[in-house]
Amino acid sequence: MNELGFGASLTDVSEGIINKDGTFNVKRTGIPFSESFGFFHFFINMSWMKFCGYIILLYTVINLIFTCLYFLAGIDGINGLPDKGFFEKFLFTFFFSTQTFPTVGYGTMAPTGIIHNIISSIESLVGLLSLAFATGLLYGRFSKPVAKILYSENALIAPFKNLNALQFRVANQRMKHEMIEVEVTVIFTIIENIDGNLKRQFFNLELEYSKISFFASTWTVNHVINENSPLYGLVKEDLEGIDAEFLILLKGFDTAYAQIVQSLYSYRFPDIVWGAKFTKIYDRSKSGKMRVKLDRINDYDRAELNTPTTGNFS
Amino acid sequence: MNELGFGASLTDVSEGIINKDGTFNVKRTGIPFSESFGFFHFFINMSWMKFCGYIILLYTVINLIFTCLYFLAGIDGINGLPDKGFFEKFLFTFFFSTQTFPTVGYGTMAPTGIIHNIISSIESLVGLLSLAFATGLLYGRFSKPVAKILYSENALIAPFKNLNALQFRVANQRMKHEMIEVEVTVIFTIIENIDGNLKRQFFNLELEYSKISFFASTWTVNHVINENSPLYGLVKEDLEGIDAEFLILLKGFDTAYAQIVQSLYSYRFPDIVWGAKFTKIYDRSKSGKMRVKLDRINDYDRAELNTPTTGNFS
Amino acid sequence: MNELGFGASLTDVSEGIINKDGTFNVKRTGIPFSESFGFFHFFINMSWMKFCGYIILLYTVINLIFTCLYFLAGIDGINGLPDKGFFEKFLFTFFFSTQTFPTVGYGTMAPTGIIHNIISSIESLVGLLSLAFATGLLYGRFSKPVAKILYSENALIAPFKNLNALQFRVANQRMKHEMIEVEVTVIFTIIENIDGNLKRQFFNLELEYSKISFFASTWTVNHVINENSPLYGLVKEDLEGIDAEFLILLKGFDTAYAQIVQSLYSYRFPDIVWGAKFTKIYDRSKSGKMRVKLDRINDYDRAELNTPTTGNFS
Amino acid sequence: MNELGFGASLTDVSEGIINKDGTFNVKRTGIPFSESFGFFHFFINMSWMKFCGYIILLYTVINLIFTCLYFLAGIDGINGLPDKGFFEKFLFTFFFSTQTFPTVGYGTMAPTGIIHNIISSIESLVGLLSLAFATGLLYGRFSKPVAKILYSENALIAPFKNLNALQFRVANQRMKHEMIEVEVTVIFTIIENIDGNLKRQFFNLELEYSKISFFASTWTVNHVINENSPLYGLVKEDLEGIDAEFLILLKGFDTAYAQIVQSLYSYRFPDIVWGAKFTKIYDRSKSGKMRVKLDRINDYDRAELNTPTTGNFS
Repeated sequence: MNELGFGASLTDVSEGIINKDGTFNVKRTGIPFSESFGFFHFFINMSWMKFCGYIILLYTVINLIFTCLYFLAGIDGINGLPDKGFFEKFLFTFFFSTQTFPTVGYGTMAPTGIIHNIISSIESLVGLLSLAFATGLLYGRFSKPVAKILYSENALIAPFKNLNALQFRVANQRMKHEMIEVEVTVIFTIIENIDGNLKRQFFNLELEYSKISFFASTWTVNHVINENSPLYGLVKEDLEGIDAEFLILLKGFDTAYAQIVQSLYSYRFPDIVWGAKFTKIYDRSKSGKMRVKLDRINDYDRAELNTPTTGNFS
Repeated sequence: MNELGFGASLTDVSEGIINKDGTFNVKRTGIPFSESFGFFHFFINMSWMKFCGYIILLYTVINLIFTCLYFLAGIDGINGLPDKGFFEKFLFTFFFSTQTFPTVGYGTMAPTGIIHNIISSIESLVGLLSLAFATGLLYGRFSKPVAKILYSENALIAPFKNLNALQFRVANQRMKHEMIEVEVTVIFTIIENIDGNLKRQFFNLELEYSKISFFASTWTVNHVINENSPLYGLVKEDLEGIDAEFLILLKGFDTAYAQIVQSLYSYRFPDIVWGAKFTKIYDRSKSGKMRVKLDRINDYDRAELNTPTTGNFS
Repeated sequence: MNELGFGASLTDVSEGIINKDGTFNVKRTGIPFSESFGFFHFFINMSWMKFCGYIILLYTVINLIFTCLYFLAGIDGINGLPDKGFFEKFLFTFFFSTQTFPTVGYGTMAPTGIIHNIISSIESLVGLLSLAFATGLLYGRFSKPVAKILYSENALIAPFKNLNALQFRVANQRMKHEMIEVEVTVIFTIIENIDGNLKRQFFNLELEYSKISFFASTWTVNHVINENSPLYGLVKEDLEGIDAEFLILLKGFDTAYAQIVQSLYSYRFPDIVWGAKFTKIYDRSKSGKMRVKLDRINDYDRAELNTPTTGNFS
Repeated sequence: MNELGFGASLTDVSEGIINKDGTFNVKRTGIPFSESFGFFHFFINMSWMKFCGYIILLYTVINLIFTCLYFLAGIDGINGLPDKGFFEKFLFTFFFSTQTFPTVGYGTMAPTGIIHNIISSIESLVGLLSLAFATGLLYGRFSKPVAKILYSENALIAPFKNLNALQFRVANQRMKHEMIEVEVTVIFTIIENIDGNLKRQFFNLELEYSKISFFASTWTVNHVINENSPLYGLVKEDLEGIDAEFLILLKGFDTAYAQIVQSLYSYRFPDIVWGAKFTKIYDRSKSGKMRVKLDRINDYDRAELNTPTTGNFS
């Protein structure tokens, strides 16, 4: 058992500890906004849709600000503006700004006034730095190593030799990313009533293999429920209502990123199936080549559980 | 115990070994400036305020230098300059430079002389390289993994089972950065008088848990003061005047950066509170969701210490 | 032995598990395209030839798209276009686009219409972002740490002391990249007939040295075939037709990249030579300096094998 | 002992294995140039002086190539060129190129011919990609983590308790880079005459402390020469003429780079001083603050060696 940094008296995590997307289901309060907010990671972790929206918004807002500055300085200081109404002058000043910010500078419109020249020299500096910033953001977004691990929807309590075992399947979803030296940690957590005091307990589950050298396709993670297992002798009903959860931590070296990647997952009570076995996920193509059918990762067949001497699953 | 790289005869570190911001309180002399100065890290580690100041300063200085070069080459070589006084010509040459350096190039001012063309071709190259450099700096600043760990203001000597324990609390301040596989090392250091010779001694303190799998929110690090502890049998007065310090090293894998991050901290004699217990930091929101109140991380209650047989704390 | 993530019933991998270029010989099906496809890594891992082709293609296509947009908006909105036929107008609108996208902006052609100004302001933003993206890609391509390990063409069964050994040679192909703390894992895999059921078995082979501190040039990896070896007592014919394969995983810290790099390789039945010894790969230059002749890495001499008491190689 | 990847029959490394700058003294032959040459790392690892030289050279050469292309296409296709002699036309075409490559584009010179427009659109693309490449190079140069470790000029054989010890001093030369979890490996290598066959032998030396938690300033690495040491009982003359060398590998986590950094070094026979002790390197400033005087790192005093029972140093 190892402590998990949740303190000793978490009594009410009715929605589980780890969400299905791998984030933690904990709300922290009392942190000043500026401390907890990572500017860079805000842009790194949002969706591409949102990211593009922000880029266009920022581009428009910055150009509008500079347009206003040029306007405030007087539009006489920019030559080449059309000699028309207010709106059109504002619009073309905006266009002048969009020629300065990305350092296009056609020159059909150009600053002549001193203040306008100062503003435009600042704008092109801001443009350069924005480009530098965008470069960093794009690189950050693309190069962030993310393991795309597919987990079987259910964890099974399956017959295994003379005993039973807790099993789930993981698959590497990335076609071009092989993972090596992959390690899995499985932690079993429940809420126990100790002297009328509800306390969350954590147990490290021993695995048949906790580390594999090559993770090309799929792996059935297997915890044998023997006398040393905290699950030994428990029946299905024992796990109900005690907020049981299996926390999964998978870590490995991704050969495409050439970096360590990790993935978090969790199975809760309703995700556990008693008395079942995973079906085969491999078959052979016509040319005799081995194929992994990842859409079969969730498939299982019903199977009779073994009855260990000191306990049994219903 | 492991040595710390401070040599065996540090007798006078009256201000402690690790500063409150995690830097080392050691002055090194005799290193040539060029060896000890990391240009890149100078810009990476300064505050954003200072960084922006430097950018603006450098932009101005580089443009002034090129302005002078154009001026020295004779301003006849740039067409489009206003036909006015010296100051105004200098100013517009400066503006021409600020149109060349960020590669805007409106063209209303443009080089015509051979030397001016050479200078401007160099300036735009310098501009490109400055942009490349700024991009690297900005990315470096943003992507540098930094653990934002909040430490409780005090370390407590608290009753623990039949014994006492040294305890402090750490919290992960980043809302979006979960840390996994977090390890803490605590080193206790004092100055001992050995044969009239003052010598600094270092002791590794054994922790109840020195590694946790998931560090979502807070963790109370706990060193039990049993017979194997160098603190066993010591009373408060024993630690006074011997320059006692607890050095903390926290390391873990940050899931947002996908990299290992670390944090250094230290507790000195005045930071230690004898006979106290940390108060609960978790509560439940109205919707039943667990919340961590990080502003309570420093809160403790007075508590009676246990009296081990061979020593006691006052 | 450790499991390899291939499941327990791979019966037909007639072409081997690891291809000669270090990729896995497994086909995965059932993954949605969007999940398995890494946009960034698509560009990172292709050849330079292909990469340049894509860049030129994208540059042309994007400019063609914007050319069409300008054309659709009416070419009156761009001044400076030649007053000639349709094709020529289209061509020069395309050239105007290629002056806007990379933010050159000579200004001899420039937008005058409102819509044209809007399009060109978008195009220069797209240009900036493309530059940012290309920067990330180029950096990603160059900085990706890749171990260039040369493996001897054959693995040998060689006499070693009173026993025999499985040996192969690896060499660091990069002249300027020294590797330190290099580890090799060798896994032996065959298909066994267990109760009429074909099952793939994996065995970790113990190595004389599985880790070396410095890997400057070459290393002869050596597995002694003693009683603990799964190869003990086997003759050449025993390995035939059971799909025997030796999987090699090499990992180390590259001092030029300052990162961990890895390499995968495999020897199959036809690559194994019975009764041979590698020839010397080092010699001395005229100046007395040691030289490693990497073109001799495959060279071996025939050698009589030892006959262990409980088995022998033919 | 662990093998070092030099094969078993290195007999003639008269100039040592590791050079004083930490690179390996091994020449590899037989690698095709394209395989051994890392383009990116060529630019990453050269000196700044050389790097700037290459940048200027490349900038000039690329512009000259495009100048020639424009010239070959006929200079009528560029308007704004001076109506003077051949040389001047070539020069201003060159300037036009230097306005296109970095995307300045004043527009006083601009392409009018179709072929010229095509060439200039290619040149600005090449310009963009060069900028992208330069950005990657600059970032790569700056962000490459390098430990700047200062080693004492000599390794000493010093009296230590009742025995003797091999000692050398290392110091962290970077003022702002603290290192944590620093590990040192010391390997002793000699050439032994085994049955008339010269063979290089490697021995791992056990260190008093091989790992320290914090490496702020200096560390005296200490190998006690007891009965388990391969140096036990050897006198100075024993090490002469057998090509003795102490290989040092230092690795640690740099808190400024937030990455693992490493350093290689070596002491050979002439670098070893028999019967000496390092002098103190710390003193106290007037304000009582501890100071490390790194210019004293090489200082030692003569000291009488102990005479172990089964051997002695002269």
